[in-house]
Amino acid sequence: MKTLVLYAHPARKSFNRQVLRKVEEALEERDYEYEVRDLYALGFNPVLSQTDIDSIKFQKTPDDVRVEQELITWADQIILIFPLWWGGMPAILRGYIDRVFSYGFAYRFDEVGSIGLLQGKRAIVLCSTGTSVEEMELTGLASSIRQIMKESILEFCGLEVVAFNFLSAVSSVEEEMREAYFSEIKKVLV
Amino acid sequence: MKTLVLYAHPARKSFNRQVLRKVEEALEERDYEYEVRDLYALGFNPVLSQTDIDSIKFQKTPDDVRVEQELITWADQIILIFPLWWGGMPAILRGYIDRVFSYGFAYRFDEVGSIGLLQGKRAIVLCSTGTSVEEMELTGLASSIRQIMKESILEFCGLEVVAFNFLSAVSSVEEEMREAYFSEIKKVLV
Repeated sequence: MKTLVLYAHPARKSFNRQVLRKVEEALEERDYEYEVRDLYALGFNPVLSQTDIDSIKFQKTPDDVRVEQELITWADQIILIFPLWWGGMPAILRGYIDRVFSYGFAYRFDEVGSIGLLQGKRAIVLCSTGTSVEEMELTGLASSIRQIMKESILEFCGLEVVAFNFLSAVSSVEEEMREAYFSEIKKVLV
Repeated sequence: MKTLVLYAHPARKSFNRQVLRKVEEALEERDYEYEVRDLYALGFNPVLSQTDIDSIKFQKTPDDVRVEQELITWADQIILIFPLWWGGMPAILRGYIDRVFSYGFAYRFDEVGSIGLLQGKRAIVLCSTGTSVEEMELTGLASSIRQIMKESILEFCGLEVVAFNFLSAVSSVEEEMREAYFSEIKKVLV
């Protein structure tokens, strides 16, 4: 199972970094080939420009986008690790979607509707939250976030979302709870 | 009514640009003071960095963020104009929120919970969509998008969302329909 990990967190030490480590451990235990794209470390440019848009028309993909598209093509599964900011992805990851998941690569339209072009690949979302997950479930916010991430992005492109875990990173979460998250992570990685 | 317009679209000519023009006309008719922040034209950096995070701790706001915060402080209402990409804001606007709506400026926490610090200001969202608005309402996607924009961002910071309009920019939308949008826009600007 060739695995691409998209990682977006600015801090060198963080709960997200711990999650990344656990994911790497699990992938190594399974002897999976994997590639981590640490978007902050890469200095990925997340701003979709007019040049990007034109490049779709002229089929001249920008170099930095092409590198990412080749990795996605190579991968059997994509794991997204990020902190939930303002109910969504940090801009650097949001813009990765804007630029890399482009028309003709990740989806296209025909007479009937949209067609996801990443079919046959799996996606796993591991998303830390600054608030309680229970509260997010109660208000329906968790469900709205899942719907948008799935229906508007991942499933729209044909990816099968096999796991979507919110991991509460609030300081009140006990060490025990975090360990439970980490063993859960190992389980979702089939 | 001092008005700040946040505008995020890469193309020089676009439906969003038309919406911006109509908003400007309406603001001029009302003789409102206003300021347009065209985030693409400004080359706004949307990537929240570790330096940004540290600057909150040390109360040393980065210059580009301070300029935007001063405009928000000045404004009585904020109008967001953007195309809906992947169920949300383009990364350049998403990152504007990440960086400018910072802790201690736009919200803070006390023992009881979060407190929005932009209370007393209004927000208007004008968001173009590439799919039919009716379909988005049917699938519940429109409602999820509104919930996140309101509860996780705007209302969370204390802003009163007085209008939230999805404007279908699909090519099948007739000129007549667009004119209806534009007169609707003029109405929401009280």
